[in-house]
Amino acid sequence: MSRTECVLAKIFSMVLVLSLACASLSAQEALGHRARITSPEINPDGSVTFRLVSPKAITVAVAGDFLPEKLGFAMMKENRDGVWEYTSDILAPELYKYHFIVNGMYYLDPSNIFVCRDVASLFNIFIVSRERGDRGWLYQANDVPHGNVSKVWYSSPTLKMDKRMTVYTPAGYVGGKERYPVLYLLHGAGGDEDAWPTLGRAAQILDNMIAEGLAKPMIVVMTNGYPNTPAAPGEFAADVNVSTIGGRVRGEAAATMEESFPDVVRYIDKNYRTIPKKSARAVCGLSMGGGHAFLISKMWPDMFDYVGLFSAAAFLNKVSYVDGKRVVAEGVDPVIEEQLATLFAKQPKLYWIGIGEKDFLYSGNKVFREYLDEKGYPYEYEETSGGHIWRNWRIYLATFAAKLFR
Amino acid sequence: MSRTECVLAKIFSMVLVLSLACASLSAQEALGHRARITSPEINPDGSVTFRLVSPKAITVAVAGDFLPEKLGFAMMKENRDGVWEYTSDILAPELYKYHFIVNGMYYLDPSNIFVCRDVASLFNIFIVSRERGDRGWLYQANDVPHGNVSKVWYSSPTLKMDKRMTVYTPAGYVGGKERYPVLYLLHGAGGDEDAWPTLGRAAQILDNMIAEGLAKPMIVVMTNGYPNTPAAPGEFAADVNVSTIGGRVRGEAAATMEESFPDVVRYIDKNYRTIPKKSARAVCGLSMGGGHAFLISKMWPDMFDYVGLFSAAAFLNKVSYVDGKRVVAEGVDPVIEEQLATLFAKQPKLYWIGIGEKDFLYSGNKVFREYLDEKGYPYEYEETSGGHIWRNWRIYLATFAAKLFR
Repeated sequence: MSRTECVLAKIFSMVLVLSLACASLSAQEALGHRARITSPEINPDGSVTFRLVSPKAITVAVAGDFLPEKLGFAMMKENRDGVWEYTSDILAPELYKYHFIVNGMYYLDPSNIFVCRDVASLFNIFIVSRERGDRGWLYQANDVPHGNVSKVWYSSPTLKMDKRMTVYTPAGYVGGKERYPVLYLLHGAGGDEDAWPTLGRAAQILDNMIAEGLAKPMIVVMTNGYPNTPAAPGEFAADVNVSTIGGRVRGEAAATMEESFPDVVRYIDKNYRTIPKKSARAVCGLSMGGGHAFLISKMWPDMFDYVGLFSAAAFLNKVSYVDGKRVVAEGVDPVIEEQLATLFAKQPKLYWIGIGEKDFLYSGNKVFREYLDEKGYPYEYEETSGGHIWRNWRIYLATFAAKLFR
Repeated sequence: MSRTECVLAKIFSMVLVLSLACASLSAQEALGHRARITSPEINPDGSVTFRLVSPKAITVAVAGDFLPEKLGFAMMKENRDGVWEYTSDILAPELYKYHFIVNGMYYLDPSNIFVCRDVASLFNIFIVSRERGDRGWLYQANDVPHGNVSKVWYSSPTLKMDKRMTVYTPAGYVGGKERYPVLYLLHGAGGDEDAWPTLGRAAQILDNMIAEGLAKPMIVVMTNGYPNTPAAPGEFAADVNVSTIGGRVRGEAAATMEESFPDVVRYIDKNYRTIPKKSARAVCGLSMGGGHAFLISKMWPDMFDYVGLFSAAAFLNKVSYVDGKRVVAEGVDPVIEEQLATLFAKQPKLYWIGIGEKDFLYSGNKVFREYLDEKGYPYEYEETSGGHIWRNWRIYLATFAAKLFR
């Protein structure tokens, strides 16, 4: 045996032993993987230490949105006992996501049970908060009255389908008699009715803002935005695999999301103690859901007094499909032009647009804003740093929610 | 540089390159990790193939409850392109959990978004079903009417605490006028109100059984069984780390779970369309929750007509705490004896006991059953293969639910 072979054989045998140790740990089912280390550890100074036990690894890195944007990942260092470590800079209060890269492979932190799905991938999350009211505090569960979050199946006659949505009712709703305004909160492409309640932190944001008097108590309805898909992956009859993600399962839809949206509003007004009128309804969404908010609000101009476009796919052109291919016409679609004229003639209380300066939809939004300016249609606009990311969408939700139903 | 160093340097540089590739993939945020392979793949013959891309790994294994019990894990083999593969035997219809072991490290399958938390660890899951009505079918979401699942905060005056629970209302509940019986379904040690709705598949089991006429439509209430803990980890104000798991956060409780249980029943009867009487109430639980069902049913003998003990921690001895240490007295506690006499004098419609032949609580259950036999207290008993595992608890739920409210 050459020296090389010898070294590799030694590594192999050690690894095999370690495999056996791990498999036996896993036989204890539920308690095996977390005991030895803490990761991530939020340090008193506001930095965060990540740790991973991996004695045989060659390279271990951590990637995540806590790192400066140019830095895709940071190499971790092996300390005693095969524990790899990395301590971040002092981090601003925020919810962050991350994962490890071990020998080049994507790897969730086995010491952290807090995992969120974003479309088709899982990420670990952690929250940095220093004081009541900061952004981390806004996104975490605090000692405030909590609203309830329900997964609700409703029938959409227009889509000829039962669909699943998430409904948040504020603290005090159950057992009370008061009627509440409703915010319809729409997800982006690839997402579903579980997106805003997880990475979007909708329930925590509303609980905390309502408790602080920063938002009015309201019902929040988070629909599934694919007109050909009943629900999030795993929640309806379909192959349990990637083909259920992103609305590609049920073929042609019976109608568009905007055409079918009154089905949702009717269901909510019928089954919840709502204030069933325009002045007590808001619709907003992120990316594709921002596009939906744009389309829905102009198609049903008497339905919503508050409209929020977050990094929205909102375009003035006519889009058609020729032989299954998307064709975008030049110039402003006269139908859209007329619908917007009608919408703004009815003077909605708020038409709000938010986008990040690096968002790939920035220029499209700029064209849209210039059109609104040209027509003299009033809107509020907020520009943030960063791109097409959840950090911005949480900020937009908090900003928009504070302005509603005043 | 020696040959060994040379080989290691080469591995290192290749791995570093791979790291960069992965980090750049992850910059696409949501769509990166799943595209290349399918894992797990349920094959037409009922075997399952697991796959992992890991070109630089030395050993890759898969562990899970789909393997024969004696086999803790199975080694995977590297095919072309660094894809490691393992194909199982033909598997019986069931929900299975698994994880990979890469170079000795616990590793979730990055191609499978379906992950369940069991106490403090995450596992991938998959379901094998061959036909309508088999056990896999029972545990998956099918094309049947779906009930709603809500996370509900309620106030427990006895525990002086707001607590979170999961409430399932059957299809037809919303918008209807009918009143429903209620099953109170309790989790085991280390668990919380999210346990039965995830690995326990409670909503899917009830949806499917109700649709098939195998169970009566009922409300199912899944509480948090720790009297000193408001909610599942991450759902209430506490450090977001392991210390929130298993009820160790809020110090001494104001009362025991069994003492406080009427708070839950009162809340449910007040806020849901229940049939508020003994004949329309059942209580059951697994392990610690089975112990709770035992304690609750005898402390409140007029509350439940159906009692289910699943792998239950049900003991006849008096348990006390001396200087914080648990002391178990010899013989049957006269208080328990009297409470059981009262309970059975009131002739509950069903006292059901289920346990696996290899369960570590088997002998304790045997002592308990012998006592019931000796006293002539009627009960139904079912023994299954296997031990203290979710597979058994799902079976017991389906078996018990079929017997309720007839």
